[in-house]
Amino acid sequence: MKTHLSDIEIAQSTKLKPITEIARKLSIDDEEIECFGFTKAKISLDIFDRLADKPDGKLILVTSINPTPAGEGKSTVTVGLSQALWQDGKRSIVALREPSLGPTMGLKGGAAGGGYSQVLPMEDINLHFTGDMHAITSANNALAAFIDNHIHHGNELNIDIRRVVWKRALDLNDRALRETVIGLGGKANGFPREDGFDITVASEIMAVLCLATDLQDLKRRLASMIVAYTADQKPVTVKMLGVEGALTLLLKDALKPNLVQTVEGTPALVHGGPFANIAHGSNSLIATKMAMKLADYVVTEAGFGADLGAEKFLHIKTRAGRFTPGAVVIVATVRALKMHGGVALQDLKTSDPGAVKRGIANLAKHIETIRAFGLPYVVSVNRFVQDSEAELETVLDWCREEGHPAAACNVWEEGGKGGIELARKVVSVLHEKENRFSYLYELSDSIEEKLSKVSRVVYGAKGVKFTDKAKKQLAELEGNGLGHLPVCVAKTQYSLSDDPEKSGRPEGFFITVRELKPSAGAGFIVALTGSILTMPGLPKRPAALSMDVDENGRAKGLF
Amino acid sequence: MKTHLSDIEIAQSTKLKPITEIARKLSIDDEEIECFGFTKAKISLDIFDRLADKPDGKLILVTSINPTPAGEGKSTVTVGLSQALWQDGKRSIVALREPSLGPTMGLKGGAAGGGYSQVLPMEDINLHFTGDMHAITSANNALAAFIDNHIHHGNELNIDIRRVVWKRALDLNDRALRETVIGLGGKANGFPREDGFDITVASEIMAVLCLATDLQDLKRRLASMIVAYTADQKPVTVKMLGVEGALTLLLKDALKPNLVQTVEGTPALVHGGPFANIAHGSNSLIATKMAMKLADYVVTEAGFGADLGAEKFLHIKTRAGRFTPGAVVIVATVRALKMHGGVALQDLKTSDPGAVKRGIANLAKHIETIRAFGLPYVVSVNRFVQDSEAELETVLDWCREEGHPAAACNVWEEGGKGGIELARKVVSVLHEKENRFSYLYELSDSIEEKLSKVSRVVYGAKGVKFTDKAKKQLAELEGNGLGHLPVCVAKTQYSLSDDPEKSGRPEGFFITVRELKPSAGAGFIVALTGSILTMPGLPKRPAALSMDVDENGRAKGLF
Repeated sequence: MKTHLSDIEIAQSTKLKPITEIARKLSIDDEEIECFGFTKAKISLDIFDRLADKPDGKLILVTSINPTPAGEGKSTVTVGLSQALWQDGKRSIVALREPSLGPTMGLKGGAAGGGYSQVLPMEDINLHFTGDMHAITSANNALAAFIDNHIHHGNELNIDIRRVVWKRALDLNDRALRETVIGLGGKANGFPREDGFDITVASEIMAVLCLATDLQDLKRRLASMIVAYTADQKPVTVKMLGVEGALTLLLKDALKPNLVQTVEGTPALVHGGPFANIAHGSNSLIATKMAMKLADYVVTEAGFGADLGAEKFLHIKTRAGRFTPGAVVIVATVRALKMHGGVALQDLKTSDPGAVKRGIANLAKHIETIRAFGLPYVVSVNRFVQDSEAELETVLDWCREEGHPAAACNVWEEGGKGGIELARKVVSVLHEKENRFSYLYELSDSIEEKLSKVSRVVYGAKGVKFTDKAKKQLAELEGNGLGHLPVCVAKTQYSLSDDPEKSGRPEGFFITVRELKPSAGAGFIVALTGSILTMPGLPKRPAALSMDVDENGRAKGLF
Repeated sequence: MKTHLSDIEIAQSTKLKPITEIARKLSIDDEEIECFGFTKAKISLDIFDRLADKPDGKLILVTSINPTPAGEGKSTVTVGLSQALWQDGKRSIVALREPSLGPTMGLKGGAAGGGYSQVLPMEDINLHFTGDMHAITSANNALAAFIDNHIHHGNELNIDIRRVVWKRALDLNDRALRETVIGLGGKANGFPREDGFDITVASEIMAVLCLATDLQDLKRRLASMIVAYTADQKPVTVKMLGVEGALTLLLKDALKPNLVQTVEGTPALVHGGPFANIAHGSNSLIATKMAMKLADYVVTEAGFGADLGAEKFLHIKTRAGRFTPGAVVIVATVRALKMHGGVALQDLKTSDPGAVKRGIANLAKHIETIRAFGLPYVVSVNRFVQDSEAELETVLDWCREEGHPAAACNVWEEGGKGGIELARKVVSVLHEKENRFSYLYELSDSIEEKLSKVSRVVYGAKGVKFTDKAKKQLAELEGNGLGHLPVCVAKTQYSLSDDPEKSGRPEGFFITVRELKPSAGAGFIVALTGSILTMPGLPKRPAALSMDVDENGRAKGLF
């Protein structure tokens, strides 16, 4: 068996091109980028004016089946597919989310694709990058300080301190901050109240930044965010506090997409990264739309499986951006299919074509979902080193029998070369299959109806149930005029149902919505099912323990 | 009377030079800088190797008398003097602290000099700049998370949760976070304990970053920081947690000085900004030393009056960096002298040469202090628009009579031109006066002796007293082997004494030390006198309410 280099070894042995050279590949003028060092740049939003008349490139959305806890290499496929398209003579850009520092310090040690399908410089991208996360953290916490300061100095808006719904945020995994009491120590320190911290990617500001179409839309969305309720149950917005201008000022540079490159020197936009449960889970709308102006093919991904990321991408993001994706790639892996076929996590390394076959039910459901949206698709089996040929063939045979376009890919090990077949299949469905994209619900549907349609059509549930609390909130939301918003379901990523133990293709189940929350600035209603952590914790031995800087100032311990 | 433009109007009407051009003025190679946009850059630390044999330029430290709450324009004089030197044909660099976002959003709306003596781009410098503050915030809070995570996962080090002394930090003014309880919500969220947040500039990591001589020294200092005590009263350090490598990784880019320019296009290093009470209050040592390698004259400032900033600069920073300043500029203003002469704050705009004369006692004390250190000096009267000629002459006459080199300056209104006389006086004392620099205490003195010497010689006190708590801490510090560190007094900036009401030159008073805290990584013992806020609050109408972004994406409301 071959020895494989670690991600950071590959990253550090790759000679990066100057970012100005990458920009020139996309016909971006030198004045349209602001460099951050030699290999990162922010792109000016003025580019939209210059390219207003240029037709958009085709958008390819990469999604997956319900994943194992280790993930199925969706980002790696996304990067690899873009590299493959470039190798095949197509002008392509990959558009990805920015990783969060919390998981980097905790379990993951970094996240920007992997192997020979990574975005670089991975060390910077995984640490402070161009400061977007920090700008969002600052804006989030400045807003929190403005709220408590308003209460402290007389509380003119009559905010009920038991119903301040705006939480503070840090881009870290820190369980001790999940539930706190603040404002202790007497009169000079304000009013004591319960509070808590989310990880920055769970901040509504992240979702707002990623759905805004321009600076004015960003400000409008920030102004609409609901931060608290008054003693008489009326929503208190950022606009009522008068700080939307200050928050926009803090975010004006973070709104600009970041240009970097892949291992193979092809262009990548890495920008924004909202949670895929309480938010919509894909990179910024501005980066996606900019990529579509700059390239003929744009490859992007949405978080978790098609039941979460793709559904939200198609219902929320395409509505905000008024665009239609060209095709969807559904990533499956042999190991996740085995999990859905009933194999325990610790046994996933053993070859078991029978379990793979049983697990295909999960893949079949996600294919149905994408077909329900009317979109062309390709199934991609992402190869892992330990997969057996018999297992791989099981999936590909099934696809062939059922008439699903499919291709294995090996981009982690081979880079773009390992994705050429996939790239060609994708280009062929883009040009040959009919695109009959339509939404599965209308905005005019009631919140209840929207949730019912998503549950039945996307999850395969019998229907949706609401707790008493959620029923009350349904009424409050409709009463506050928010019933026209799309819904954003926070649900376990491990199952089509709301029970993480139900792998495969569960049937006969109901989805239980236990709480509803408006993200009025982002423009959706979050429906919480099961328990969703918005502030992760660190493991006993965090990845940080292995991190260091060598004598030449190079990062160590990001893997 | 002339109409004066606001700082932001001057800033935005100045045509900035490309930062590469500024770098070239200092013979910095293009490969030695990393650009952040067109007008900001970080300078590589490798430059120290290239210039190892080059003799250091002269260092000019700008300090002041005890200020009014509005400040005496010390940064403005610092920038203006550097511009004046450049106009007079001298190769000079100004080395300043980075402003904190908290006060910018709160009262100040920005801080980077003023009028025609500013550093630019002021909008960026006042907002996220090159991300140094955010890197420090991240490292500070990552460390806090590692501590609580250690306790949660078994607490092998036997940390007493009542004695976790490491606080969390945000670069904001947020009084509600001064005193908190964290870890609530049950077993999954760790152990409930009292905690609190400081503003980032008060984090020991800021002090560490600003005193480190290189990346290895940074790591060594981080490793030495004391974060908690065990149940049996032993210090727990970062090294014992094993995360000094991860913290160094988070800070490796923040350690590089930032190159920007003044309104007149002369070079400026703006880097680091620790508090001037619980820390040493001046820009990074690395930036200062780099400036001395790159220029013939370096103008820098230390926070608050000479009793705080200059004393710490001379006892702490010069020791860490093994260098000797060439001369000191003592800034006085007519309005601060009037305050010391007994005039109430609201009456400072009325001309009163008699009060100025009485207030000179405060200036005289600060001159004595600088003479005690054996350093050449120049008194500079920083002109304000409302000052009368009679008031200005009162100060200059006194200096003439007493034989103190002195010059008025008008750099706020006139830029470098308004500081030419000052620049020439400074150059003349640098070359003509004898430099007999020596410390006022030795490291081998006991902590008590060090504090006594500073109190008597610098503040003019009769001596120092310790509360019972401080006495216990004295013993603990000496017992933990920290007695050899220099001291860092946290004291009101408004008086030479520890009572903010005592203006002028108080006599016969004692300094009361109520608490002692080791900053073992920064390498000093903080002695707290009076009450020092390490997390400011916001005013009723924060500056943020006026902030916005115009239709062209330009900042509004930073003044």
